[in-house]
Amino acid sequence: MTRILRIAGAQMGPNTLQDTREQVLARMIRLLDDAAEQGAQLVVFPELAFTTFFPRWYQERESDLLRYFEPSMPNPNVQPLFDRAREHNVGFYVGYGELTPEGHRYNSAVLVSPTGELLSKYRKIHLPGTSEPKPGLRYQQLEKRYFRYGDLGFPVVRTRPQWSNAAIGMLICNDRRWPEGWRVLGLQNVELVCIGYNSAAYDPGGGDGESAELRTFHSTLVVQANAYMNATWAVSVAKAGNEDGAGLIGGSVIVDPNGQIRAQASTLGDELLVVDADLDLCLHGRQRMFDFAAHRRPQWYGPLVEQVGAIEPPSV
Amino acid sequence: MTRILRIAGAQMGPNTLQDTREQVLARMIRLLDDAAEQGAQLVVFPELAFTTFFPRWYQERESDLLRYFEPSMPNPNVQPLFDRAREHNVGFYVGYGELTPEGHRYNSAVLVSPTGELLSKYRKIHLPGTSEPKPGLRYQQLEKRYFRYGDLGFPVVRTRPQWSNAAIGMLICNDRRWPEGWRVLGLQNVELVCIGYNSAAYDPGGGDGESAELRTFHSTLVVQANAYMNATWAVSVAKAGNEDGAGLIGGSVIVDPNGQIRAQASTLGDELLVVDADLDLCLHGRQRMFDFAAHRRPQWYGPLVEQVGAIEPPSV
Repeated sequence: MTRILRIAGAQMGPNTLQDTREQVLARMIRLLDDAAEQGAQLVVFPELAFTTFFPRWYQERESDLLRYFEPSMPNPNVQPLFDRAREHNVGFYVGYGELTPEGHRYNSAVLVSPTGELLSKYRKIHLPGTSEPKPGLRYQQLEKRYFRYGDLGFPVVRTRPQWSNAAIGMLICNDRRWPEGWRVLGLQNVELVCIGYNSAAYDPGGGDGESAELRTFHSTLVVQANAYMNATWAVSVAKAGNEDGAGLIGGSVIVDPNGQIRAQASTLGDELLVVDADLDLCLHGRQRMFDFAAHRRPQWYGPLVEQVGAIEPPSV
Repeated sequence: MTRILRIAGAQMGPNTLQDTREQVLARMIRLLDDAAEQGAQLVVFPELAFTTFFPRWYQERESDLLRYFEPSMPNPNVQPLFDRAREHNVGFYVGYGELTPEGHRYNSAVLVSPTGELLSKYRKIHLPGTSEPKPGLRYQQLEKRYFRYGDLGFPVVRTRPQWSNAAIGMLICNDRRWPEGWRVLGLQNVELVCIGYNSAAYDPGGGDGESAELRTFHSTLVVQANAYMNATWAVSVAKAGNEDGAGLIGGSVIVDPNGQIRAQASTLGDELLVVDADLDLCLHGRQRMFDFAAHRRPQWYGPLVEQVGAIEPPSV
């Protein structure tokens, strides 16, 4: 018996500052309808899917940030997406700006079952960028200013037969470049990693050292390799295109446990990828090359948790 | 000022059981001569470069293993390689079977300076395969039987101006698939990771789930991604081809800190790759995306060292 989960990556084109929430939701619902029509059981939307990627702008007043955040999930501003998904009996992953009752902000994602239950929540741990605006940059990367670091670890949940009992984990954007997060998921038998991202098409630190092509290559490479090294499927989904002058890469992919690309976006707009993921394909890697119990040697991994930054090696 | 190190990957074709040590050394010296003629300063040879990949065979008597091991490094059986390298003022990495004075066996590699000093030694930590022969397999993978697990950690050394002050680390074969080892190197500011390998062209666990093409893809993918995620150059070098009926993949590569391939072997035989590695290319990643001190969150990496195997996630 094979365990097939039909998964969809719902890449989104840009959300500009002028777009209303209704316009954005209408596009997301259209992607959801398309996915349901194609029989998808799980749809992965991008990071901060409901708004533009606002950390690129410095906002002096905290109150100016509130428009980008959801005070609860769901809430009336996103309810139509939740309702339509339940009608279709389709679940989803979606990224959003989370505002807690205590007024704390996180870059978060939720996993919602086909019957509308919140199965799991993740708050982004690897926040890139800076806390203070960098002088001279046309676009900032202020995630460290606008969000608290995630405090929920790297969760995986074992789902029910309606999702083929898939073990599903979540990452957000920059997390996909950090093998530590992937490994925490792998150490929980993850079979499908859902990732949404907003990645600049230019070097966010300034300079012209990284083209959109190179940055798309990086994005794809890390998903392929970390999926392989953890014997898991991965769906990595962009918000892409030109948001008020600032470019975002596309390159959404669905990758199998061999690290091979099964589907890849070809546009910078709204675009759906659908793949039948055989979850039992994870077993080959997990029982052989990446049989962690047989082959990992944690007694030599101490520096990974004992130090944060690099330490200069001895001279010889 | 850029810091250029001209590095060479010296892929080797098969060493069969019939090959004498003199024949193998002659091929290695020919590769070394070619590298020196092209101005290379550091030559990377494969894992267990002096012999066939003997862990594929079950040897009942320990004494039958001795022919594959070096009782010291250097020793008269390898001295001609060391002598020629010093004549050329070229340093090298070479993998070999290490037999200690206490009679312990390791799968080891040494880094030798252009003036013939042993700068660093590494003993393979991620030993693949099994301790006991698996019934019914034409070729075994008995590294866990024939070698002790490495006990020297993952060393990096900061070299002198004759090697552009490169910070050089070592891995061996299967280690390249384990991001934990790469990260320990990255946390020591590594700028060049040297890797030798012998990787079967068939699925060593039996079955036909993995073709030579897929296994070469895996080999290349993990080097590209781990080089990128640690902002380092990498030279990954095969012993390739048909050793007494058992196939080994080729696919040796030199990869830059963006994860891009700068040179790649096209044969399964003796073949030299030469690249001018600008070590300062590591700075871009190290100071931005992979500024570990700014972005790592070790408080969430605990499972990497607190558990060996995977633990089932909660059901929802």
